Amino acid sequence: MAIKYGVIGTGALGGFYGGMLARAGQEVHFLFRSDFEHVRKNGLQVDSVNGDFQLTEVNAYLNSQDMPKCDVILVCMKTTGNHLLPALIKPLLHPKSVIVLLQNGLGLEEDLASQLTGANIAGGLAFICSSKVGPGHIHHLDFGKLIIGSHNFDDQEILNQVVLDFQSAGIQTDLAADLRYARWQKLVWNIPFNGMTVILNSTTNQLMANEYSRQLVLEMMLEVIHGANHCGVPLQESLAQQMIDMTIKMKPYAPSMKLDYDFMRPMEIAYIYSKPVQAAMETGFVMNKVSMLEKQLQFIEAHRLDK
Amino acid sequence: MAIKYGVIGTGALGGFYGGMLARAGQEVHFLFRSDFEHVRKNGLQVDSVNGDFQLTEVNAYLNSQDMPKCDVILVCMKTTGNHLLPALIKPLLHPKSVIVLLQNGLGLEEDLASQLTGANIAGGLAFICSSKVGPGHIHHLDFGKLIIGSHNFDDQEILNQVVLDFQSAGIQTDLAADLRYARWQKLVWNIPFNGMTVILNSTTNQLMANEYSRQLVLEMMLEVIHGANHCGVPLQESLAQQMIDMTIKMKPYAPSMKLDYDFMRPMEIAYIYSKPVQAAMETGFVMNKVSMLEKQLQFIEAHRLDK
Repeated sequence: MAIKYGVIGTGALGGFYGGMLARAGQEVHFLFRSDFEHVRKNGLQVDSVNGDFQLTEVNAYLNSQDMPKCDVILVCMKTTGNHLLPALIKPLLHPKSVIVLLQNGLGLEEDLASQLTGANIAGGLAFICSSKVGPGHIHHLDFGKLIIGSHNFDDQEILNQVVLDFQSAGIQTDLAADLRYARWQKLVWNIPFNGMTVILNSTTNQLMANEYSRQLVLEMMLEVIHGANHCGVPLQESLAQQMIDMTIKMKPYAPSMKLDYDFMRPMEIAYIYSKPVQAAMETGFVMNKVSMLEKQLQFIEAHRLDK
Repeated sequence: MAIKYGVIGTGALGGFYGGMLARAGQEVHFLFRSDFEHVRKNGLQVDSVNGDFQLTEVNAYLNSQDMPKCDVILVCMKTTGNHLLPALIKPLLHPKSVIVLLQNGLGLEEDLASQLTGANIAGGLAFICSSKVGPGHIHHLDFGKLIIGSHNFDDQEILNQVVLDFQSAGIQTDLAADLRYARWQKLVWNIPFNGMTVILNSTTNQLMANEYSRQLVLEMMLEVIHGANHCGVPLQESLAQQMIDMTIKMKPYAPSMKLDYDFMRPMEIAYIYSKPVQAAMETGFVMNKVSMLEKQLQFIEAHRLDK
């Protein structure tokens, strides 16, 4: 079965994953914004640790209304633009289309499901260091693993095919047994490191080298794990120390929110912080430290955009 | 009864309060560090909202061993230098001397009492906006009220006289019925505003104008009040909203820790954050948000001094 792919948001993530699929021979249609003209003329350039490549013939669009119906729609935008998703996606939908939200945070699928009644929605998590370094020019620095899982449909056949397509394209990809489990698990890392590198203007290795911030990161990870537990997601406490140990071994790393902050892009506070805080709160569990970090980020966000 | 005063640390606080006492005719002996030569030649200049004045004849010392025995020793240094206090104070002590720690935080008197066995120790809180703007040059911008109280001695006579001397010198001064109550009460304001203005690089009015930071300040104030309650200090929850309302009405204000941070002076983390967190912890109460702010400050402090 040949899947027709649509990529909504062709940046660091969409450019890499969509580009890898297209290079492997899949039919991929890419939605661009500012890079449209450049890519139409010059193609898409991906500099990857696994080998550079260029796509000269790219199915590039400036407007999703010009795109064909797609079987699988990979959403690779920042969640700060998710209010635009229903209008962007509708033109690509046929009755069996599957939308895969390759985004960080919690509650993304729920929000979209309430806006696009009847749509098949899945989600995914990308474990990757990648950035856009110029128009139509992606730099893939490290990692790349994907986990995807269904949110509201039972037929696994199409997701199985997506996994196979990614694997054939050279991307390590797994099917999530439980998408919420996978989302919460990634939040255990994302919540402390994204916000703390912004608030303390630091990198992961600086946070790990200082005893106070390392302890605070550990405490916050445990708080997220307890939040997940209250929401019925059985993450183990031992995961916190494992992630600390892994991070200490990693190269110094600026998480995506730190890059968004440094480059004056809006930060993904709503889905990475507010939704998890709210989800735990609804079970009666207060994530004190996460909630404090959320408010600090909201202040920073409002204040820098005021200036 | 004429009291002989010693001032340890003649900066924004010691220069103003000691200067006011000296101007009113009290005998005051001032310990200086870098400003000693300047003050010996040029005297002490106080520019105050209540009227500027200059002291041309100042009992100035560079070394506390040269100072006379004093009846009341006003400690006006930053608490970051408190490890030096026993050595600095000893030369000034006679058996009835009273040491008044005019400093912010918790546990100051306890620490000094354990280092200077048998000494009469009191504490005080200064509600003042004042800064040193040059050698021997103090700028008193606003407020000035003092609260003082005994830590470990029963004879109130000398403290009553100190209150009268300050009042005669034009300083609104009260005797604290319970020094620990006064210290915790001031911490309700100091803990959120000192640390948050540093971490979020902001002023009091910016923190009050943003709904998220205002909510976080309120939550942190309530946490400090609950911490105090656990330590047996009966602060009311209503104090939090009162302090918020008062701060909203205040002029934009950079708390002392923000000034310390901006001018690359060490921050008073130990007595304003670590000691209160520890005191509450010993009763079984965890001040989650205060403890998080403490760790963020410790990171910032270690990191900026690394650079």
